[in-house]
Order: sequence, then structure tokens, then C-alpha cells
Amino acid sequence: MLTSKIPVGILGATGVVGQRFIQLLEHHPWFETAWLAASERSVGQSYQAAARWRLKTPIPGAVATIKISAATPEGAPRLIFSALDTAVAAELEPKFAAAGHAVVSNSSALRMQSDVPLVIPEVNADHVRLLECQSWRRDSNGFVVTNPNCSATGLVMALAPLHHQFGVEQVFVVTMQAISGAGYPGVASLDILGNVIPYIAKEEEKMESESCKMLGKLDSTGIIPASIHVSAHCNRVPVEDGHTESVSIKLKKPAKHEEILKALAEFRGVPQELRLPNAPPNPIVVLESPDRPQPTLDVNMGAGMAVTVGRVRPCRLLDWKFTVLSHNTIRGAAGAALLNAELLKAQGYL
Amino acid sequence: MLTSKIPVGILGATGVVGQRFIQLLEHHPWFETAWLAASERSVGQSYQAAARWRLKTPIPGAVATIKISAATPEGAPRLIFSALDTAVAAELEPKFAAAGHAVVSNSSALRMQSDVPLVIPEVNADHVRLLECQSWRRDSNGFVVTNPNCSATGLVMALAPLHHQFGVEQVFVVTMQAISGAGYPGVASLDILGNVIPYIAKEEEKMESESCKMLGKLDSTGIIPASIHVSAHCNRVPVEDGHTESVSIKLKKPAKHEEILKALAEFRGVPQELRLPNAPPNPIVVLESPDRPQPTLDVNMGAGMAVTVGRVRPCRLLDWKFTVLSHNTIRGAAGAALLNAELLKAQGYL
Amino acid sequence: MLTSKIPVGILGATGVVGQRFIQLLEHHPWFETAWLAASERSVGQSYQAAARWRLKTPIPGAVATIKISAATPEGAPRLIFSALDTAVAAELEPKFAAAGHAVVSNSSALRMQSDVPLVIPEVNADHVRLLECQSWRRDSNGFVVTNPNCSATGLVMALAPLHHQFGVEQVFVVTMQAISGAGYPGVASLDILGNVIPYIAKEEEKMESESCKMLGKLDSTGIIPASIHVSAHCNRVPVEDGHTESVSIKLKKPAKHEEILKALAEFRGVPQELRLPNAPPNPIVVLESPDRPQPTLDVNMGAGMAVTVGRVRPCRLLDWKFTVLSHNTIRGAAGAALLNAELLKAQGYL
Amino acid sequence: MLTSKIPVGILGATGVVGQRFIQLLEHHPWFETAWLAASERSVGQSYQAAARWRLKTPIPGAVATIKISAATPEGAPRLIFSALDTAVAAELEPKFAAAGHAVVSNSSALRMQSDVPLVIPEVNADHVRLLECQSWRRDSNGFVVTNPNCSATGLVMALAPLHHQFGVEQVFVVTMQAISGAGYPGVASLDILGNVIPYIAKEEEKMESESCKMLGKLDSTGIIPASIHVSAHCNRVPVEDGHTESVSIKLKKPAKHEEILKALAEFRGVPQELRLPNAPPNPIVVLESPDRPQPTLDVNMGAGMAVTVGRVRPCRLLDWKFTVLSHNTIRGAAGAALLNAELLKAQGYL
Repeated sequence: MLTSKIPVGILGATGVVGQRFIQLLEHHPWFETAWLAASERSVGQSYQAAARWRLKTPIPGAVATIKISAATPEGAPRLIFSALDTAVAAELEPKFAAAGHAVVSNSSALRMQSDVPLVIPEVNADHVRLLECQSWRRDSNGFVVTNPNCSATGLVMALAPLHHQFGVEQVFVVTMQAISGAGYPGVASLDILGNVIPYIAKEEEKMESESCKMLGKLDSTGIIPASIHVSAHCNRVPVEDGHTESVSIKLKKPAKHEEILKALAEFRGVPQELRLPNAPPNPIVVLESPDRPQPTLDVNMGAGMAVTVGRVRPCRLLDWKFTVLSHNTIRGAAGAALLNAELLKAQGYL
Repeated sequence: MLTSKIPVGILGATGVVGQRFIQLLEHHPWFETAWLAASERSVGQSYQAAARWRLKTPIPGAVATIKISAATPEGAPRLIFSALDTAVAAELEPKFAAAGHAVVSNSSALRMQSDVPLVIPEVNADHVRLLECQSWRRDSNGFVVTNPNCSATGLVMALAPLHHQFGVEQVFVVTMQAISGAGYPGVASLDILGNVIPYIAKEEEKMESESCKMLGKLDSTGIIPASIHVSAHCNRVPVEDGHTESVSIKLKKPAKHEEILKALAEFRGVPQELRLPNAPPNPIVVLESPDRPQPTLDVNMGAGMAVTVGRVRPCRLLDWKFTVLSHNTIRGAAGAALLNAELLKAQGYL
Repeated sequence: MLTSKIPVGILGATGVVGQRFIQLLEHHPWFETAWLAASERSVGQSYQAAARWRLKTPIPGAVATIKISAATPEGAPRLIFSALDTAVAAELEPKFAAAGHAVVSNSSALRMQSDVPLVIPEVNADHVRLLECQSWRRDSNGFVVTNPNCSATGLVMALAPLHHQFGVEQVFVVTMQAISGAGYPGVASLDILGNVIPYIAKEEEKMESESCKMLGKLDSTGIIPASIHVSAHCNRVPVEDGHTESVSIKLKKPAKHEEILKALAEFRGVPQELRLPNAPPNPIVVLESPDRPQPTLDVNMGAGMAVTVGRVRPCRLLDWKFTVLSHNTIRGAAGAALLNAELLKAQGYL
Repeated sequence: MLTSKIPVGILGATGVVGQRFIQLLEHHPWFETAWLAASERSVGQSYQAAARWRLKTPIPGAVATIKISAATPEGAPRLIFSALDTAVAAELEPKFAAAGHAVVSNSSALRMQSDVPLVIPEVNADHVRLLECQSWRRDSNGFVVTNPNCSATGLVMALAPLHHQFGVEQVFVVTMQAISGAGYPGVASLDILGNVIPYIAKEEEKMESESCKMLGKLDSTGIIPASIHVSAHCNRVPVEDGHTESVSIKLKKPAKHEEILKALAEFRGVPQELRLPNAPPNPIVVLESPDRPQPTLDVNMGAGMAVTVGRVRPCRLLDWKFTVLSHNTIRGAAGAALLNAELLKAQGYL
């Protein structure tokens, strides 16, 4: 492939998130899929033979025939997207970073590590500077940057402009999460058809801790987490893509209804300023109809990179309440990592 | 039908809740279905011709051939169950009460009227005494007693023992409600298949106001609502039967984890004392598995009259949080009214 | 709107198929939406106020503010797409044709009328010549051209190349049809969630008669229907878009497996020759994986205009069997009518 | 357990079918669950710890604490129900038979073996006599009796009375099968939510061959399969329980509509004569409504042991067509084996 694009590798390329990476990279102006790794039994197979492709667009032609590599740094390009499960990521991502690779990870393994940036570019692009003190970077020029859990993403996107303008003190959030968030094969159909499962392992803890880290401040000692009290209830529902969240918040400063709507609708961040390729023009789309957002209708807003918010109204307990929807495998996973990589490229880290 | 059972009439007999009344009355020891009314176009037809029966047990033989009557008091038995829509109920229920009928209603029309008892027998059986000052009762010996909205039912059942022992001050609740709650045809399949609808008209207001009325105190002036701040978010999900609710609460008095569990599991009320026919032995069943309750597995607990609670755990914002599930057309509608009628019978009102 | 595009009107503009027309016309090179009619209660409202828009792309801006007209010919453009229900279509389509309008209809009302072309452009573009003897056309220059039922469309597309090369004598077909085929609100969610409904009124008769008309020959006396024995079983399944069909066929001439595959895969028709805007490059896409086609993965092939066929294998009873999938509101409804209009334009009828 | 009931063992006790065995045996008058085996990792655990119980009734108390045994004949009771996967069954069932056990199997492993009876008691109870020449029986007094595939069961039940009276020559059948037929975890939710999968491995072959064996005749040389041409298309749909089948048949002798209905409705077999505990009074229930049977409404007819048939009407290609529904894990699996065991007991084989 004789192009001037930056070659990228994908760890965990055959899974639900790995497939999204490949789909989103197909027409990317800066990056191109060049190297794919998966579990041992797939090594040596072509991607199309190894992956049970589940997306509605076909496998990009150039990717279909790529041979699956072993998940070791040798021969891998510098820029690596990681779609690995936590346990495997905890082992492999440090190896790749130590070997000089720029690891842009969707995995939860290193997110809460104090020298690893956990970034949504619209929210806390400045946290990337944590890399300056990341030991891998000093030693090998490799590093790890992460994006948050899919259920924390939509929440933090919606909170960011409100936190900035009015200060968020308390957050109550109940999620209704899509099955694609559990990977493939993931949730058994017998468990979820016509059902609600009121539990997703470790999800509530991730929402609570990751939100505070991202809304926190970077100072010379590292990230000072925001002191927001977050209480999350996480549920699985029979929806294919899109996490819906019922959210109530308490603010430090009083805000009027129109101020809340304006803060959300006019929210812009570094990706919009820099016109990053996957930056949605409006990171938050406010919907007026009382019964929106809905996953089947709104999940693909902004090519799956916009978060939709609706039903902004007073809360009888805290101050305001609303519904948030975001695409869990695009904005909440592969698209999130891709936007992080675009940010890193724009900032000269790649 | 020469039995000693009390004949009952059903207003709105062909709808989803009307069908449940007929199903639950089939083998009832005290009551028997004797009179059925529905909208004008059904009058004169046999029940089996008029109703689009949607339950998994067949239409009881004796009911199938009952001719649909007009919805007027003439010829109706004294005891009337109402499964009418709000607007129609607002007009017809007072007429029946004024004509001397005992109207046990599932409709929302009169629930919040100050002299109308809104009752869950386990929770506030004593509120039935409001009837003493109900004007219809004085004038005609007729009266109206109501049960709450299906989404308030599970919540209030779970709150009752906690409120009694520890005092509930604040409640956050997010519902994931079944499609049968919207009646038939109700929710269009195109709207809900694989989707979440984050809105049910007037449902949040009902949950907030009805809960406080039921947990309130009856004194000589009427009901003093409990001063609990309730904030509800109501969502529709693709589940057939069973409303699931994520709940967080703040208590006046500190409570330990095992005290909460014990209060829930040992909760008993008047129906259990009186051994009313539809009283579940345990009105609240506490489930230990971290991923329960689930609608498809737990909704029929206690023949649909028990409320299941699970995931009782500390809340980072209030004090405790848990998941509640209740059957919306049994415990939340027809079964609720039936239990109210059983209570009224036991108390000598019928 | 100062463009050189042909203005089009839509009868039944607010329904599921009406919405698809508007969506498909948004970027059409030849046509543009200029006039919208719906039932009386919507007349005078803007389209966005009158329609309960259910598609995943937003209402085109220029259409949102169009005022709904009464469904009468006055003021309507010459080219009219009809998405009316049968009963209404039976009354209105002749009126529009008599008033000089070119009515391109998705309705079943006039499909089987002997002087009305029932056309899939890839299959029987020549049937358009029936217009020469259509009385409306003689009298007013108006006319009616129809496309088939959504469930007949996929079947006939797949049969056409086989009929042409080998002669189809017998057809068994069992459909598993999507809910969007029933319009909005259409199928109640309580009826279809987790269920199969083994019945769709008049659907089997339509499949049987329409297929023979389309595969028939036009001679000087009109259409001589193909003498194919078709037996259809029609079922509704909880799928949003896409009718899946299990088909077995008996051929006049023996055919080898690879000949069947080749006939299907290489099928092209007049739309492909004329490069009509909505013509898919491959009207039939043959899938090799044993478990395809599947609605969620394959329904949008060829922008919803391609029919996918898979599992071609010998039948133990007839000769061959296979699975067909087609998009019921695009290829089976709005897209079908649009392709018919493109054909009519290319042939000089507009 | 000091009862006079016959103790039974279950191979594959933790799976979907194993759970059904336990549920159906809970109140059985003749048999009681006494021994449970599962895969190695479960051995030694209590049943409630080892099984992910998925049924709507709780684990029977006496079973919950049974320790899982290794799947070897030592210590197992004589009567064994097998719910094993094919590959494991092929290895273990012969071992148990050789060790003297009466193996009543739901597995496909040995169904088509010439000396193994494949039995639906209403259809071919006489085939049990094949045991007389089964080598295990001679050597060890052990034996294997099987029931058919879940999708063949409903079909053959419906065909049996028609074959007996009119002779069935040709059968075309398209299935729409429930997810519980694939076991647990079985079908991934991402694969089936809102979807149809037009393929189930080996299912069509099983339907075609098993049907002919069961409708065949036993003579001194063994089973002479019925010479019926069966062509099956098998599809998976998002239904929890209940396989729906669209069936067309050709008969040897002409039959009138009412004769078909009568033959189906009046069908009775050996289980009804012997009043076996799990025999439904009417093995086939004919439904009159044009849109029945439907899985959510009719699957539990006859406690899941009755097959429902509807839409009996002429076929334009063969003679008659209709829709069949049967419960795939009760009549099509655990209930089938249980009825076989009841038959064997009544015939003195246990």
C-alpha cells in the first residue's frame, strides 16, 4: 500500500470493537489499517476467515485479506488501537508501550492508572499532557492513551459543558445499555429477549470513577479528580446499539432552563476547533420532542459521534434531569479511540 | 349461575386490564364475573366476539358468552371493577358511585381526589376509612376506591417497610416499563422493537404524587401526604410484562444492610393477616443473585402479586439503592383492584 | 424552488411508505418533492407537524415546511406517487389519472386491473406498453402504473432470471415479513414481540396472482399471465425492515447449481442498461455464507434496492431451494415506485 | 428419599433441556430425580451452584442440593434421561446402555441407528419393539430409546393422523424456530435480535430423515421408512419457546376440509389410551382463528405437550397447507423423552 497515510495496527481486531475500528478507518484521511492481531487460534488466517463480521457494511476489500498477526510488538506499526479485553490488555498494552508503540486503547485495564490519560477530546484534551510524565514515553517513546467506558462517555459528554459553566456536584444516572456493549457472542439471546438485566459487572464503578477523572483538573502532580458524587445503576436492555441514560444533576450555580439547553447545544471542544476528521460538528445534539432521544432513531446522529440529549426538565430532588443517548461502539469505543488518535496526531504525538 | 359468590361487573372489560380481571376472577372464592361493559360498538356482542383476548390462558367458559352491556349503572351488580381509560372513567365512575355501586377502580381519574382512597392493602389499608367522608357513600351508599398507577405500585410496596422503620426522605426512581402497561393496541411495534422510549405521558407526575398520598397519614381532615421528595424518570422498554425500577433512597434514620433486607423480606400487611385470597404470602421477595430481578424470570413471583427486590447496596449519593420489579397488569392493575375489593369485603364494605 | 427537476406529489405522504418516498427523493437527480397530501385532519399543517417521522435520517429541510394539501388533483404536479391504503387508492388514483396525472402507485388497488401495468423494471419493463391501451391515457394523458406487493417483489426478482433461462413451473414460498410492511402504527407490539403471526390478510393471494402477472407476456390483447403454480404462506416476524422468504422451485429445463448461481448473479435488466438513478448495479446479490441473507445484515444491500439470495441448494421435492431477502419499504414499496417513475421518464412518458 | 418412585438420572442436567427434565419431574407420579451428571467442571458442586437456572419456576428444593456426579454409569440409577449434545451422547449413551441402563435420550446421536427406536408415543409406540433386537438389551438388559428433533416433532405429530387416514406423499415445511432450541448460551443476542437466521446446522436433514423413520413400519427386519418426500427449510427467529412451521402436504387419497380437521382434532394415541401422566388429552389442538397458532399465546397448550394446528386450507401446489406450533423444549425435548419413559414403564421395560 503505497500511500502517505499512517499505518495502524489493531489489537483484538476480530471482536465487535475491532470491527468498528476497521469500518471507521476504511475511508480515513490520515490513517489506514495495516496490521491486525487477534487470539492465537486466528493467527495466520486472513481477516475475513478469522472474523465473524457483524457490521452492516462489508469488510473493506484491502482488509479482508490481511493475515492475522500474533499479538506481539514485532512487526507492528507504531500506532496501535487496542480493543482487547481487560485481562489481556493489562498484559499486552504495557508491552507494546514499552516497545515504543503509541497505544490508543479502548480497554479498561489502564484507564485509572495515574499517569495514563483518560480522554474525551471535547472534554479534557489537555489531559494528554499527562504523557509527559508517563514512564514508557520517557524510556521508549511509546505510550498509552485511553478512552472511557462506553456508558461513561455519553454521561461525561453531557456533563462537561454544564460542569464548566455551572459546576456539577451530584449525578444520579441509570443506564439502559445495548447488547453490542458486551461484545460477541456476549449476551445470550435467552437472557435478554424481552427482558431487562439489572446488572453489568463493574460498570457502575467505572462510570463513577472514570467520570471524576475526566472532569478533573491536570496540575503538576497529575489529575485531581473532580469532586462530584456520582451514583450509577446499570441495566442491559434488548437494544442493538446505543446506551440510553436517565440522568439527574445538582449544580453549584443556579442555571435557567434555556441556559442549560444553550450550554449543551453550543458545546464545542478541541476536535471541533481542529476540525479533526471524526469530530462531529455538534458534539451534543439537543432534541426537542418529548420522547427523544431513542436508540433506533437517534443513535447514528453525527455518524455515531454525536451525543443526543432530550427531555431537559427540572428534577424534584436535584436540579435538572434529562435523557442522554450515545452510540456505544462508535462514540463509546472505536470512534472514541480514533478521535483520541486524531487529537494525538494534531498535537504532534504520532 | 346459582352460587353464593358476589357478582361483579367490569367496566372496560375487553382491554388488557379488563382481560386480567376476568382471568384472575375465574377461580375466585368470593367473587364471580357476572356483567361486562365495554365501548358502544361492542354492546350486544358476546364477550368472546368483542374481546381480542391476548392472555395465555383461554377465556373462562362462563364468561365467553356473556353479552356486553352498555356502560350504565342499570342492571349492573353493586360491585364494579373499573379498567376504564382516564377520560371515560372521570365521567362514568362518579355515575356508578352515585347510583350506589361500589366502584373499585384501576383508573387514574379519581386517585388524587381528596376523599377517594388510593390503596395498596399491604401499605395503607387504613386509608379505606376515607370512605366515611366520601359524599357518594353518604348519599347512595356507593363509593369509589382506587389503586395506584402500575409504576407507583412496585415502588411504594418496596418503600413501605423502609418508610415505616427508617423514614424515607428522598427517592430517585428510573422505570423501565413493559408494553402491556400501555394497553392494546398501545405501543406500535415499530416504536419499541429494539428500542427504548424515554417518555410515558403523565407517568412521572403520577409516581411522584401517588407515592406520597399512599405513604401519607390519615387524620380527621383527610390524608396528609408523606413529605418525601420523589423524582421519577419513566422509560418504555421492549418487555411484555413487568416494570423494572432502579431506585435510590435517603432515610431519616441510619439503617444497616441487613436491616434493610430484613425489613423488606419480613414485610407483611393486612392482606397477609386476613389471608385475603389474592394476598401473596410474601409481598416482597428479596433476591440474592446480583443480576435479579429480571422480568422474564421473576415477574410471576407470588402469582404476579409479589414484588421482587434485588441488588440492595449502598448509594454513593443517597443511602441505599436497589432494583424493584412488579407485574404491571396483575400487582399493578387488575390484581391490585381485586385485592382492594377483597379488603373491602373483609372490612364489611361490600 | 427554481430547479429544473420534475416536481412530484405524494399521496399518503405521512405514512411509512410516504416517508420513504420523501427520504429517497431528497437527493434525486431528476425529481423533487413539491406537493404532499394526507388525510383531512393533516391538511394545512406543515409536513413536520403532520407526520410522525420514523426514519433514521432527518426530514429533508425543504420538505419539513411544505403544507399538507387535500388529496385532490387541483394544484398537484403531474407526477404523483401514491402510498395510499387500498380502499382510498381505489377511489383517488382513478381520479388523479382522469385529471391527467401520471400516477405511480405502490397501492394494491389497481394492480390486477387488466390495463394497468404492474412493473418491476428489471423484470417486465416492456409491460409499460400496456399504457397504450389504458383509457385514462387516451382521454386525459393521465395514467396509472403500479409496483407489486412488498412480499411479491423479492420473489419475482429472484424468479425472473430463472424463469427466463429455465422456465419456472412451480413455486413454494414461505415469508417471514417485517413489521414496517404493515405501516404505522400497524402491528401492535403486544402482538409481535417475541412472537410469529402466521397470517397477513390477503398477502398470500397477492403473491400468487401478482407474480404470474409480472412474469407473464404482453401481447396485443394484454398480459398473458405466466402459468406458474405458486403457493404462499405468509408470516409476520419481529423484524423492523426486510422480508425473508424460503423458496422452492420447479423448473421446466434442468439446471445445474452453478447455472442457477450464475443466472442470479449476472441478472441485469433495463434499469441497469439505462443506468437509472435508483438502479442497483447488481439487482440480485448472491451470498455464499450458509447463514445468509439476514435482515439486520443484508437488507440495505444496494441501498435497499438489491435483492439478496443465499443458500441455493437442491430441493428434495421440487428442483431447487433458496432464501430471498428484500427491503420491503425500499425495493418493495417506495424505491420500487421511484424506479418505475425513472423508467417512465426514460421512456418518455413523463 | 424414601418413596416408591423410580429414581432417574439425568445426563446433561445443567443445560436448557436438562432443566426442563428437572422441572417436569418435580411432581411426577412415577419418577423422581435422583442423580444428575454434567461436564467435569461441575462435578461435586450442588445443582443450584452448577446450573444457571433459566426457567420461570424455581429449582425444586430436593434437587437444588443434589451433588453433580461424573457422567459415568457407576452409581447412576437404571433409568437415565439424556440431554447431552450429539458428540458427547455418541460416546456416553452406548456406555450407559452397555452397563445395563435404560437410556431415554433426547440426543440426535443414535436416532437414526437401525436398532434404536425413534419414538413419539402417539405416532409409533409400536416401534419400541425394536428393542427386542437391540444388542445392548440382549447383552446387559440396557437399551437406548430416542425421541426426535424438536422441529420434526410438531411436524410428525400433525402428519401422523393424516398419513394414517389419507397417506402423505409429499411434505414441504418451513420452520421458524425458537432460540431455546439452541441451548444456553446458544444463539448470541447480537445475531437474532430483530433478525431471522435462515440456517440451522443439520436441522433440515434431521427433519427429512427422522420424519420418514417415525412414520415408517416396523417389520421383522426393522423399520421400513415411509416413502414420503420431505423438503425442509429451517430458520431461527427471535422467539423464546415454540417452533412454528408452515406446512404443505400432498395426500394419496383425496380428503375434504372437514375430514382433515376431524382427523387432526380427534387424533389420539397410545399415551391417551394408557392415560400416561404427561399425555395431553388432545395431542393436537385445532385452532379456528385465522391468525393462530402463535408462540406467545399457544405454546403452552396441554402443558406444552399439545401441538396446535391452524389455518388448514387448500394449497395451490400440493393438496393442503397449515401452520403447526409445538413447544420445542417440552413436547420437542424433555417432555418427549419423559413420555417415552412413561410408555416404556407402561410396557414393562423399566
